[in-house]
This record gives sequence, structure tokens and C-alpha cells, in this order.
Amino acid sequence: MENHGPKPIRCKAAVCRAAGEPLAIEEIVVDPPKAHEVRIRIICTSLCHSDVTFWRMKDFPGIFPRIFGHEAFGVVESVGEHVEEFAAGDAVVPTFLGQCSECVDCRSARSNMCSKYRFAVRPGMPRDGTTRFSDGQGRPLHHFLGVSSFTEYTVVDVNHVVKVNPAMPPALACLLSCGVSTGVGAAWKQAKVEPGSSVAIFGLGAVGLAVAEGARICGASKIIGVDINPEKYELGKKFGMTHFINPKELGEKPVYQAIVEMTDGGADYCFECIGLAALMNDAFRSSRDGWGKTIILGVEMHGAPLCVSSHEILHGKSVIGSMYGGVKPKQDIPILADKYLNKELELDKFITHEVGLKDINEAFDLLLQGKSVRCTIWMDK
Amino acid sequence: MENHGPKPIRCKAAVCRAAGEPLAIEEIVVDPPKAHEVRIRIICTSLCHSDVTFWRMKDFPGIFPRIFGHEAFGVVESVGEHVEEFAAGDAVVPTFLGQCSECVDCRSARSNMCSKYRFAVRPGMPRDGTTRFSDGQGRPLHHFLGVSSFTEYTVVDVNHVVKVNPAMPPALACLLSCGVSTGVGAAWKQAKVEPGSSVAIFGLGAVGLAVAEGARICGASKIIGVDINPEKYELGKKFGMTHFINPKELGEKPVYQAIVEMTDGGADYCFECIGLAALMNDAFRSSRDGWGKTIILGVEMHGAPLCVSSHEILHGKSVIGSMYGGVKPKQDIPILADKYLNKELELDKFITHEVGLKDINEAFDLLLQGKSVRCTIWMDK
Repeated sequence: MENHGPKPIRCKAAVCRAAGEPLAIEEIVVDPPKAHEVRIRIICTSLCHSDVTFWRMKDFPGIFPRIFGHEAFGVVESVGEHVEEFAAGDAVVPTFLGQCSECVDCRSARSNMCSKYRFAVRPGMPRDGTTRFSDGQGRPLHHFLGVSSFTEYTVVDVNHVVKVNPAMPPALACLLSCGVSTGVGAAWKQAKVEPGSSVAIFGLGAVGLAVAEGARICGASKIIGVDINPEKYELGKKFGMTHFINPKELGEKPVYQAIVEMTDGGADYCFECIGLAALMNDAFRSSRDGWGKTIILGVEMHGAPLCVSSHEILHGKSVIGSMYGGVKPKQDIPILADKYLNKELELDKFITHEVGLKDINEAFDLLLQGKSVRCTIWMDK
Repeated sequence: MENHGPKPIRCKAAVCRAAGEPLAIEEIVVDPPKAHEVRIRIICTSLCHSDVTFWRMKDFPGIFPRIFGHEAFGVVESVGEHVEEFAAGDAVVPTFLGQCSECVDCRSARSNMCSKYRFAVRPGMPRDGTTRFSDGQGRPLHHFLGVSSFTEYTVVDVNHVVKVNPAMPPALACLLSCGVSTGVGAAWKQAKVEPGSSVAIFGLGAVGLAVAEGARICGASKIIGVDINPEKYELGKKFGMTHFINPKELGEKPVYQAIVEMTDGGADYCFECIGLAALMNDAFRSSRDGWGKTIILGVEMHGAPLCVSSHEILHGKSVIGSMYGGVKPKQDIPILADKYLNKELELDKFITHEVGLKDINEAFDLLLQGKSVRCTIWMDK
């Protein structure tokens, strides 16, 4: 009897063979989706700092050869058994954070951390740990964050796929897959920034700029950006930033003191978007007594603990950590897409560059040099 | 012309002459209240751990001779100029935390930290820094936390006085002045414990037991008490505690692991009521991913910072600090009194001992030996 199900697909992918080495465009084989999985034709993808972090990582969970990429937009090519939520042709974004929609966390408005399929940086598929990728010699290639989008085709668990309005331009839908949703979500969902409030943002990469955009939408009246790159001053203004601090230009004055002075006692909401324990403490000290909230988004680069004054926190301050900005992918990405289509959320300004897949290493260079916010990587260019 | 205003009063007080030394019953002079002040005849007072902390403290803000005490109930004896909120005969509790009711913090539901008259451990009155107490030789005696209740009469700023329903029994109204309000408030107002939730409480002194009482009122279904004193097991049950952990009996197992196992992933709300940085971290690790909240109530004894994993906090956890459990004195103490009068809040069980003022040093011994929850100190016994 003939098998009429999906067949393996040969296609191009950017494969990373060793930590920190340029990606190589290779022909790979992408297996058909298994049960509860969909195979997606990637239309475009972009590079996020977490890709760079794990691209550099020599030890586990750094593992090679691997296909990176976790911010993308695509179209469902085929589906595995028991997949009812998606059909071939659906416009989708894959997401590194899963949502089973059944567990106590997925059913609660308070959590976006699925407790049935817990978040982890695995080398394989989230459900069975195996891979759907192999190279020209039939040797397996590892997955990344359940997405692996630096390839023309990928296989993703249904929990990690969200349908989006086909009216969304592909390059903009792609932004909602990770970085922009994280930053906007942190202001909108996690901090719940209120009209008239003051916000300080430490680090004006894509996530920090998205926090500014989110705070702007929420009606914050003072949005203070902090970055040691002076070029972020002009850039930040496009995202609603009202004040800029370059810590290098403050002389002896600590950055938190400058923020306390600018906000008459401290900012209502302080966001750490870099991943440095010292900056997390600066953010905390910049927040006001009474109700100041510090929101941690950055993944601490050296694994250092978050340390704050145990006395200062008693003055009504709080520290909140958040993955993906508190966004529940299947519920909130469509809301963010609507906010774009209603002209509330501005997305075009996040895209500063574009390249074809063959030039993906240029996207790495642009990000590492701090020149790009987001560089769209098109599969068909 | 004769001055018809209030005169100085000679009365008895328990004076502390040097750090860590027993208090001495002396005759002192209490000046009339100045503008915005009231003079209170103390009916009863009790001893709180913060009294002990500053009683032991040799260096500033430890300062002597001083009149300690900040948890009390009394009756207004006379009022100074511009006092319209109170009149002689009013039943009141003084509070260490002030509320001006005018500043942005006092007007906000989110803060209980008055920003017009900021909290500080001063040796004098909050408005002008001077003292209203002098000893038999006319030498000044220092105030404590704006209250100083170990005396038959005291003078307190109007911002630090709350009227209470005269139907409240004095010894129970006294409890609302500090410790019980702090613990109940932390569960009710700061954490907003929900029906069916799980709670872990580190340290079962009066504040920790009041957290349990607050969690019980809020409908928590699992209330885990943690204390190294095995006698707290039976005691805690009276306050709604459903499970008890003595860390000394766990062997190699860390306390947070025991709590994670008992709650199938971590408690919804964890309260640190001791003031030890290591326990604050234990509390944090005992809280669940997704929405686990750690509430810090203890004043860190050694000034050590609060340190938690910068990666673990990204899983949707938060740490909140709170003074006085988030209670806004003039608004919330009357609500707590009503909860007692409506038989919702149980207060009698907090009182384990009583003494007269002359035996106040016994109250210190009982607290230091962990034998009392609250010992009422009556002025007229």
C-alpha cells in the first residue's frame, strides 16, 4: 500500500557546525511532522540575541550541528496526526514558548509558563526529544528552542505555533514571534503600565525599544531610555522615548540617581533588558518607593544572582521576572496583530535591514555591531 | 494672663538607659502636645521584635536614654493646635507608620509609604525632631518610631494616630497597632491571597502567625508554617496552619524542596517574617513558577542583600517588599477592627501573657525565649 502522507523535504538551511562559527548554507532533509506537529514553510525569519547567546555557547545546552532561529513567519505545509488546530496554508508564527491550553498555568490568566510541557533549551522536539532534521549525509542536526527557523522548512510542535491574521505583512508578523512581543508584552501585560506613569528602560535593543513602544501605547508620560550607545538617542525617540541617559556621560553620578532626580523620587516601572545583575540592581534603585516595580527581561549573561537591598524593598518595591513579557502566545499574539492592524502598535520601525538566507551571516554582523534593530532574513531572496 | 492649655504631666515610664540593659521604671515629664500633635494616655502596650532590635543597637539609630514601645492602645488626653481629627476621650491606636492623607502616596491605593513625611527611625518627633519627654533631672529622653508607648502618657503626631471603635477591647485594639496588622495585611492587602491557594510562612512569631490568620481569612487551603521551634507546631494550628516544617528535622533536604513537593511545584505565596537573607532566598525558591510571589516582611538583621536566581525569576516569579503589610493605617485599621467585631478576624489567641508596667522586663524575657506571642503590658497594674 502506498503512503499518501507527507514525505521528507530536501531544502536549504543555514547550519551552524561549531560554536561561534559562521553559518553554512547546506542542503538538508526535513522529516514529515509526527503526531501533534506541523511542518512549516518559513517565509522570513530574523535574528534575536538569544540565537547569538547559544550560537556562542560551547557547552551544553550549546550543542552542534544545530539550526538556529526562533523568530519567524511561515505557512503550514503539512500536519501530523491529531492536528486539528492547523491546516496546510495557514499563516503562522512559531514561538519558543509553548502553550498547551490545558494545564493549570495555561488556563490561568496569571501565568504564561505552561506547566505540562515545561520550557527548556532542548536539542530536539519538545515532546519526544528527537530531531526532524538531517544533513546531506543523513546525520542528525539539532533543533533550537522548538523552532529552528533558519531553514526553508521546519517542524514545530502544535503547542509552539500560533495562527495569525493573513492580512499581516510577513516581515511584521515575524516580529511578533519573539522580541517585539516580549517588550510590548512586558509593558502591557506584565507591568500593566498606566497612563501618565514614568518608565525607565535599561538597554535599547529590540526588546528595550519594544518596551518603549508598549509604554507609549499604554500612555506613559515619561519614557527614559538608558544605553551606552549614543546612537540610541535618535533611534529611541522613534519609539516614544522622551528622555535619554548615556551612563558614560554622567561622570560620577550613578544612573539610578539621575533617574530618581528626573522622576522626582524614582520611576514607576523600570525594565532591565540586557541581562546584567548590576543593571538589575540599578533598575531597582531607580524605582520609586511605595509602588515601584522592576521588571527583569534580560537573561543574566554570567549566571550572577539578582541582588537588591533587603531594606529598600521593604519600602513597597517589587521585582518581577518575566519570560516572553508575560505573553500567552496563542491568546496574545493575535491581539498584538490586531493592535498593529488598528494602527495602535507600530511595527515597521523595528525593521532596519533585510537580507536573503545566503547572506544570513551579515545579519549576525549587523546585530553584533549594534547597527540593526531587526534584520529580516528572506528565504526566497 | 493664665494659660488654659494642657500642662506638662508627671507620670511613670519604662526608660532604657543603655543598649541591651533592663528598662527602669522612672518618673518622667511629658510635655503638652504641640501643633498637629496629640497627648495620649496609654491603656496598654505590647512588645514587638523591632523594639528588641533597637534596644540592642549600640550605634545610631540606636540612641539612649530612650522610651521604647510602638504597639499600643490609649485614650486622647489633650490635643495641640490645628488638631481637628481628634478630641480628648477618643479611643486610639498610635502607629509607627504615618499617613498624612494628602501626598500622592497617601492618596493612592497602591502605596502605604507617605512621601510627605517619610518613614525613618528618628530620635524625636517626626515634624520637628524635638522631644516631649524629660527625666526627673530635666534631661531629654528620646522617642522611638514616633510612638514611645512604654509610658503612661506619650505625645504622637496626628499622622501617627488612628481612631478605633470603642467597642474594641483595649488589649485587642493594641494588637492592631503593629504586628497583627502587618501579618494580616501582608496576606490580605499585599499578597491578596486567593481562596484555595497555598501559602508558606517562614518564621512563626506574631507576624508569621498573623500571616497565617490572614491567609485563613482569605480562604487559603494549604498554610505551611516553617520554624525551628517545635512548639510552634501546636501553636500554629490555632492560626489556621495546615502543615508544619521544622527545617532541623529535614536532614539533608532543603526546606524549599520540601515545600515544592508538598505543593506540587511550589507555593503560590511565600512570606519571609524573620529577616534573614538566606531565608528570603529559601522563600523565593519555594514559590511556584508562573505566578509565585515572595513577600518580604522581615528586616534583614545583618543588612545583607536579598539575592535570588536571576534565571529563576524569569519563570514568572516576583518578590515584593512591604512595610506594615501594605496597611494604610487610618483606612485599614478600622477595617481590621470591624473584621474582629464581625467575628471574621480572631485576635484573642495572639495574647499569651500579661504583666503590669513594673514587670515590663518579664515581657522582654518571654519574647526572647520564644515563649510569648504577645504579652499585654497594662499601665494600671
